[in-house]
Amino acid sequence: MTQDRDATRAGESVVPLPERFDAGVIFIGRIRTPFTTRDACPRQGRQDGPECQIVLDEPYAAGLQGLEAFETIEVLYWMHEARRDLIVQNPKGDGGTKGTFALRSPLRPNPIATSLVRLVSIAGPIATVRGLDCLDGTPVLDLKPDRCAYTPLAPPKAG
Amino acid sequence: MTQDRDATRAGESVVPLPERFDAGVIFIGRIRTPFTTRDACPRQGRQDGPECQIVLDEPYAAGLQGLEAFETIEVLYWMHEARRDLIVQNPKGDGGTKGTFALRSPLRPNPIATSLVRLVSIAGPIATVRGLDCLDGTPVLDLKPDRCAYTPLAPPKAG
Repeated sequence: MTQDRDATRAGESVVPLPERFDAGVIFIGRIRTPFTTRDACPRQGRQDGPECQIVLDEPYAAGLQGLEAFETIEVLYWMHEARRDLIVQNPKGDGGTKGTFALRSPLRPNPIATSLVRLVSIAGPIATVRGLDCLDGTPVLDLKPDRCAYTPLAPPKAG
Repeated sequence: MTQDRDATRAGESVVPLPERFDAGVIFIGRIRTPFTTRDACPRQGRQDGPECQIVLDEPYAAGLQGLEAFETIEVLYWMHEARRDLIVQNPKGDGGTKGTFALRSPLRPNPIATSLVRLVSIAGPIATVRGLDCLDGTPVLDLKPDRCAYTPLAPPKAG
């Protein structure tokens, strides 16, 4: 018998999803990883982990221009298999609870993950990186240069 | 005459928004900052910047339980005033272009910002922090412990 990994555990609290969302996201591509089940995903990515491909849909590939200058990039993706209604969680299954915002668990009202990854190469619409821990086929939302390496290019502001 | 800050500049390319979004986000609260116009917002937050309040809507306040243990937290918010269709940008206005994903500009298909901020205090549904650079009234999507300080609490996985 398989344990239901999405069952609510002792001490957990739920906030029902609202009837309407406040804004919409676009899946700009998919992530290819060697992790084909949720159990196979590591708890945190490592920058010496396996190579993964971030494959952008065609209209978005032009947005990669210039990203090759950065060693470390931030990837935002949508954890499409995670339940969104847990606001207090029992992550160890031992009755000890934590608020969702004190955890980096995939289970959260907006299941958006942020990962810092090492950029290996860019070829056409595909960025190859190391350091992801997500399921194969995960939708991508965004890529950005790591904030540490990044200096804004826009002119300074008055005030 | 005010310059139209949302006008398309030389060398910029546009990808029209799709007719339907792929998933929906929930605004879990709002951010109170001293920055009441886009021009007043700094280009990057500083951890010695002014105190700002992250005010969660009531059902989500329980999710803050345990967050007080972390000095640095990650905040995800929705840049609700930014246009979403620019895929190649001319950030300096000088004709030199960069792909959107090589910039941390607010203008991007999914206008989700990530900031690392210093946690000052938590009281009820309000987390006071330093290090934000966003407009007063910006919708919040998520808070997480900084990944550097965080060790997953869930039991280790086989394989």
